[in-house]
Amino acid sequence: MHVDIGNALASVASPGVSRESLERLDDQVADAHERIERGMANADHGYESLNLPQRTDPDEIRAAVEPVADAEALLTVGIGGSSLGAATIANALDSDTETVFLDNVDPEWVTAHLDRLPLENTAINVVSRSGTTAETLANFLIVREAFESAGVDWTERTIVTTGESGPLRDLATRHDLPSLKVPDGVPGRFSALSAVGLVAAAVCGHDLEALLEGAAAEAETLTGSLFECPAYAYGATTYALDQRGAGTNAVMPYAESLETSAEWFAQLWAESLGKDDLGQTPARALGVTDQHSQLQLYRAGPRDKLVTFVTPREGPDRPIPETDVEDLAYLGDATLGELLDAEFEATEASLAAARRPNVRVEIERVDEYELGGLLYGMEAACVLAGELYGVNTFEQPAVEWAKKATRGLLGGGEFEEAEAVAEKTELRVER
Amino acid sequence: MHVDIGNALASVASPGVSRESLERLDDQVADAHERIERGMANADHGYESLNLPQRTDPDEIRAAVEPVADAEALLTVGIGGSSLGAATIANALDSDTETVFLDNVDPEWVTAHLDRLPLENTAINVVSRSGTTAETLANFLIVREAFESAGVDWTERTIVTTGESGPLRDLATRHDLPSLKVPDGVPGRFSALSAVGLVAAAVCGHDLEALLEGAAAEAETLTGSLFECPAYAYGATTYALDQRGAGTNAVMPYAESLETSAEWFAQLWAESLGKDDLGQTPARALGVTDQHSQLQLYRAGPRDKLVTFVTPREGPDRPIPETDVEDLAYLGDATLGELLDAEFEATEASLAAARRPNVRVEIERVDEYELGGLLYGMEAACVLAGELYGVNTFEQPAVEWAKKATRGLLGGGEFEEAEAVAEKTELRVER
Repeated sequence: MHVDIGNALASVASPGVSRESLERLDDQVADAHERIERGMANADHGYESLNLPQRTDPDEIRAAVEPVADAEALLTVGIGGSSLGAATIANALDSDTETVFLDNVDPEWVTAHLDRLPLENTAINVVSRSGTTAETLANFLIVREAFESAGVDWTERTIVTTGESGPLRDLATRHDLPSLKVPDGVPGRFSALSAVGLVAAAVCGHDLEALLEGAAAEAETLTGSLFECPAYAYGATTYALDQRGAGTNAVMPYAESLETSAEWFAQLWAESLGKDDLGQTPARALGVTDQHSQLQLYRAGPRDKLVTFVTPREGPDRPIPETDVEDLAYLGDATLGELLDAEFEATEASLAAARRPNVRVEIERVDEYELGGLLYGMEAACVLAGELYGVNTFEQPAVEWAKKATRGLLGGGEFEEAEAVAEKTELRVER
Repeated sequence: MHVDIGNALASVASPGVSRESLERLDDQVADAHERIERGMANADHGYESLNLPQRTDPDEIRAAVEPVADAEALLTVGIGGSSLGAATIANALDSDTETVFLDNVDPEWVTAHLDRLPLENTAINVVSRSGTTAETLANFLIVREAFESAGVDWTERTIVTTGESGPLRDLATRHDLPSLKVPDGVPGRFSALSAVGLVAAAVCGHDLEALLEGAAAEAETLTGSLFECPAYAYGATTYALDQRGAGTNAVMPYAESLETSAEWFAQLWAESLGKDDLGQTPARALGVTDQHSQLQLYRAGPRDKLVTFVTPREGPDRPIPETDVEDLAYLGDATLGELLDAEFEATEASLAAARRPNVRVEIERVDEYELGGLLYGMEAACVLAGELYGVNTFEQPAVEWAKKATRGLLGGGEFEEAEAVAEKTELRVER
C-alpha cells in the first residue's frame, strides 16, 4: 500500500501534525520497530501475527478444502476475528462461489439463510479458536440440524478451523473432518492471513500465494522510519492526530468491494487500541455514498476526526451514455470510473479546504496481491500504534465480562456478572 | 418507540446527566417544543417533515406503482436521503420482491447488479429532488441503456420521484412515466415517510397505512416534556451527554433487519447536527456481532461515547439443538432468541458496570407500525436536538463544495473548487 499524509500536516489541517513533530516521533518509531522486530523474532504473542506471510502454508489449506472445492456456496460460521478477515477477502474478490458469513445469532436471519441456500451444494466452514464461542457453537448446532433435516450429510461438507484442543477439535477428530489450526500467538483480529481468513478464499478459488506474497512485500517495507514505511507512516500519523484531538478515524474506501475491509479495520483498531481509556474510535464509511450522509459532519462538525480514504488506483470502468439533457451533458463525456475518481478527489480537497485532516491509502487495484499488502500494512500500522500508545495491543479483556454474564443468564454456571444485569437503573419514557 | 435513559444518569455513568440537570433541560425542551409546533403549523421548511404522517397519501403511491406491482425485483436509483429511508423499510420487512439500492457509482458493482438482475421483471425507481444529482443521473443513464440492450422497454417499468421541475420531471412528462413528488419543505433525510421512502415499500407490498399510523401515534406523544415523550427523551439525553463529553453516538441494533436503520440514523444525525463545529458523531454498530469487535473500545476506551441500543421486544425464534458436548449443554436448553436477548442484556450491563452511558430504544416488534414509529421518533429526536444545539437542522451547506469541485473536474463548468484539487499538499510514503 501507499500512504499520503500530506493532508494531515499542520500546514494544511487542524488538528494536524508538523513535519518537525513527525521527525521527533520518528525516534519513537525506531524504538518501537526494534521491539516489533524482537517480538517477531521470538514469535511472541501477537507479534507472531506479522510472521504469517512466512508461516502460512497454502497447500495445507487447499488440501483441507479439496473435498468441497466444487461447492456452490460456502457458509462460514464464526464471529469477530473468526469471520471478518475471511469476509473482507471474499467480498473484495470475484468468485462463482457464494459466501455467507453467519456472524450473528438473529433467529430470523439465520433461518432465512438456511432456507435460501442450496444445502446439498453448500460447504460449512466453522471457525472458533477456543471451540466454545457461544454464538458460533449455537449456530453450528443449528446448521448441522438443518443439513440433517435436508438429508445432507454435514460431516462430508464441513471444514473445522480451531485450536489444538477443545470441543470443536474433539468433534473434528470424532467425525474425521478436515481441520486446520488457528495459529498460536495470533489473535483473531490479526488472523486474516492464516487458515482463519484463507479457507474461504481457497474454496472461492482465490490465489493464496498472491495474497501471501503481497503481504510479504509489505513486510519488507517495515523499517525503523515512518518516512520509509507506508504502514508505519499510517500508524504514526493516526496516533499523532489522536493525541492532537482527532479521536475518531472515519475509514472511507472508494470501492464497494472494499466495504467489508472498513469493518475489518474497525475491529482491528477498536479491539487492539481501545483500552486504558485510550484508543481512536473507528467509524465505517463508504465513498461516494457517504458524501451524501457523513460528509457534512466531517467537514463542518467538531474538529475531532481524521478521515482515511482507501482507494484503488485502477479498476474496471463503464462509460456513461450520452444524454440530451443539456445541464447533464458533461456526464455523458465521462465514464462512471471518472465520476468516482472526481468525487474522491473533490471530497479529499473539500476536507483539506476546511482544514480537516485526512490521509490517503492507495492500492494499485483490488486483487489478491494488493489485498494481502493492505491487510498486512494495516495490521503493522496497528501494532506500531499500540507501541506508541503503550497499550497491550493483543488482548481484549473488556469483552470477557459480557461473555460471563451471558453464560450466567442462560444457566451455564454461577457468575456474579449475571446478577448485575438484574440491578439495572431504569428511567423509562413509554409511548 | 420506548426509551430507557436509566443508564445515562450520572448515578450510573460518567459522562452522565443528573436527574436535576434533566429537569432543568426540560424547560428548554418545552421552549423547543413550542418552536417545533409552530414550525409544523406553518409548514416551515424542515418542520413540515413532522407533518408527513398526515400529508402522505398511500393511495397515490400505490396507484403510481400499480404498473410494476408484479415486479420480481426493484432497482432504486438514488443516493443519501433518496435511498436510505426506502432501504431501511425494505431491508427491515420480509417481501418476495428483491430490492437493490444503486446508491454508489462504483462501475464494477453497478455492472454486477445489472448483469445479475432479471431486467425483464425488474422495475426502476429513480429518486432525486433536483433531478440533477450527478451519481443518480449517471446511474440512471446506465440503467436505461442496460434495459435497452436487453430489449426491455424501460419506459414501461420506471417510476420517477422528483421535485416540481427539473430534468427528471421533464423526462417523466416526455415519456409519460408514473411520477410522484418529493414534498416541499422536507429534506431528503427526513423524507422516509413520503413517496421517497414509500415507493419501494409499496412495490414490496408493505402496509403503507400501518407505517403512517405508527408514525402518527409517535407524533401524538410530542409534548413539552422529555419525561413524557420518548422522542424528546432520546434527543435531549443525547444532547446532554454530548455536552458532557460523549461526542460519539454508537447506534447498535440487536436485529439484522434493523442494520440499515443505523445507516439511516447516521445520515439523519450527521447531516442535521454536524455544523458550526458541533454535532455528535454517529457510529454504526450491530449486536451481537460488534460485541466481538467494538465492545472492547466502548467499555475500556476513551469516555467519549454513548451507546444506543435499538431492540425489538419480540421476534421470531428458533431452538438451539441439544448437544452431547458437556461444556456447551447450557446452549441446548435455550433458543437462539434467548441467546440474543441474554447477549444484549449482558452487553448493556457490562457497559453500565464500567460506568459507560447507554440508552435503550425499544420497539414491540419489527413490523410496519413499529417501524413507522421508530423512524418518526428518531426524526423528532433529531429536530429537538437541533433546537437545543441551536443549529440549522435542515440545511447541509458543507456538501456543496465537493459537488462543485466534482462538476468542475468533469468539465461541467468553471468552478474555483476544482482548481483547489490540483493544489494538494503531498507527503507520500510508497511501498
